Amino acid sequence: MEETLLKYLKDIPGIDREAQAAARERLDSLIKPPYSLGKLEDIAAKLSGITGKIRNDFQKKCILVMCADNGVVDEGIASAPQGITFAMTGNFIKGVTGVAVLAKNSGADIKVYDVGINTNAIIPGVINRKIRKSTGNIKLGPAMSREDAVQTILTGADAVREARREGYELIGAGEMGIGNTTTTTAILSAITRTPAEGITGKGAGLNSEAHAKKIAVINAAVKINAPNPEDPVDLIAKLGGFDIAAMTGVFLGAAYNRLPVVVDGYISIASACLAVMMNPKVKDYLFLSHLSEEPGYLMYAKMLGLEAPLNLNMRLGEGSGCPLMFDVILSACAIMNNMATFSEALAETGEEYLSKLTDRA
Amino acid sequence: MEETLLKYLKDIPGIDREAQAAARERLDSLIKPPYSLGKLEDIAAKLSGITGKIRNDFQKKCILVMCADNGVVDEGIASAPQGITFAMTGNFIKGVTGVAVLAKNSGADIKVYDVGINTNAIIPGVINRKIRKSTGNIKLGPAMSREDAVQTILTGADAVREARREGYELIGAGEMGIGNTTTTTAILSAITRTPAEGITGKGAGLNSEAHAKKIAVINAAVKINAPNPEDPVDLIAKLGGFDIAAMTGVFLGAAYNRLPVVVDGYISIASACLAVMMNPKVKDYLFLSHLSEEPGYLMYAKMLGLEAPLNLNMRLGEGSGCPLMFDVILSACAIMNNMATFSEALAETGEEYLSKLTDRA
Repeated sequence: MEETLLKYLKDIPGIDREAQAAARERLDSLIKPPYSLGKLEDIAAKLSGITGKIRNDFQKKCILVMCADNGVVDEGIASAPQGITFAMTGNFIKGVTGVAVLAKNSGADIKVYDVGINTNAIIPGVINRKIRKSTGNIKLGPAMSREDAVQTILTGADAVREARREGYELIGAGEMGIGNTTTTTAILSAITRTPAEGITGKGAGLNSEAHAKKIAVINAAVKINAPNPEDPVDLIAKLGGFDIAAMTGVFLGAAYNRLPVVVDGYISIASACLAVMMNPKVKDYLFLSHLSEEPGYLMYAKMLGLEAPLNLNMRLGEGSGCPLMFDVILSACAIMNNMATFSEALAETGEEYLSKLTDRA
Repeated sequence: MEETLLKYLKDIPGIDREAQAAARERLDSLIKPPYSLGKLEDIAAKLSGITGKIRNDFQKKCILVMCADNGVVDEGIASAPQGITFAMTGNFIKGVTGVAVLAKNSGADIKVYDVGINTNAIIPGVINRKIRKSTGNIKLGPAMSREDAVQTILTGADAVREARREGYELIGAGEMGIGNTTTTTAILSAITRTPAEGITGKGAGLNSEAHAKKIAVINAAVKINAPNPEDPVDLIAKLGGFDIAAMTGVFLGAAYNRLPVVVDGYISIASACLAVMMNPKVKDYLFLSHLSEEPGYLMYAKMLGLEAPLNLNMRLGEGSGCPLMFDVILSACAIMNNMATFSEALAETGEEYLSKLTDRA
């Protein structure tokens, strides 16, 4: 199983530097001061590197929402009961959650995966790829076996293959899993060797007592599991969740399939970091969306060396930042595809235009 | 003439605080942790205050692009020749500039106004409201008479009335005017009593020699004109441009007509500040878009007490940030209009849902 993952990682392609350079050249020739459209230009050029084409247009977009339960909720570190993971998964399908309405507004679809919800129920419309019903409680031991971690990562990667087969050209990664800011912060604490005190947020809205408990649980989880901070699979198996593992797979899968992929908030950026730890080439396929309110977000962003263009104080998760970024990405495409170059603008206006110019008083 | 403006300012309505409070109440009842959609929630509630309706949907959107020339370009403070104002105005109509392609991508229209381009030519498709051919050189004296300033402001306000008559529900303010970062910085220098040295940017791309000249020109302009820093009309007449004056009118006109209005970059936010100086109620109708690269932008934003949600290092102007913000505004509307409340979500799922929950292992 792990050999399959290692082979997959080895086969991730680099981007097309030539197409990216040609894209930059066209951007510099458009009728505007050089680089005056800033990051929109960076986005357009990055897209060209990914697709190999100067002009891009992403008609079919989807957000892959990975849903799973986390055993650590037994410790009382979440502001909502575990059953909310299951309930919200149904609400995604009904189209009434944050990510669902934002995706629809931006012309994107959502595909909802059960990779570990703590239920025997089959939710109509949800794609069933359940590994197990919930992870273990990381305060007491590993979240999952190394084998389960690898299998979940490959499941996430396979979701992108399926999406690509269905014609999707632009991917977003989202999640639902009560307790997953705790697992995400435990991984951050382990990677950066930072005690939980300075990096733990209040999740969906903890009071200070529960917040103190969350900090203690994270410190205990890192101590008892003692993961290798340089081994992303070990970090996921010992401190992660099926949600994080599957999203890590989504980022790998996007790079493998040469598709641009948008990072949502805190859980999403942790998964993106883990994917980049597995293969640094993945970074060239990533687009951050919004600067999450979770305090650890910026540390993950710094590790990636990427910046989020949207600052909306969001902290919902679900993939809710992805559709907003899809809009920005399509704006970047519009610039590349439809703005005139200086020479085109002159050619069109020609003599008449020049005579008018000399007419000025 | 000035009495007309004073009466207009007096008639600007306040927002509907009751609708805004009802909107907040609905936002708090949606299936998400409270305020987890951050500024998207603030935007949705602000829109409700403006329109008086909880649910909003802006089908018809347009950006009013105010084009004019600035006499101060004689001093060599701009990186492009004055003729570019005229040339780009034609390119707006052809749909090939930054704001034109971004507006189209976001389903918005642009309406281009000539309020002072230095040409006798009539540009087909451009709405001719020319006050004069270019302002005076502010290094040597006032940009325009006080009467001209008032007339231009009312012209901008009238453009919103026309837009509203045509069914537009959401407005953006843009401009084209070579030399207008100089006039905008001169106004900032006068209002904040700050020497130009610390607040002057490189515009569309000045070298350091031209940058030094720009600073000297701004300091000289403020000194020779000595405007009253508390009189926005005096600031516009002595240091501004027809572009700034007309955009100031657009912001006033949006408030007067109860329409939400988006601020683009540096020139736009200066105009928004001047409008708020004329009547503080205008602030309740304003939506910042992107954090401009111009160093003075943040000072204007602080004066307004508003923050820009997009950080894209843009500095093109034209109104190019407005369509990106239209997308964010429509996302905020989607949340309010289409997310379920907790009670709706429970009612829909009912008994079956609860029995499934108890089914969990």
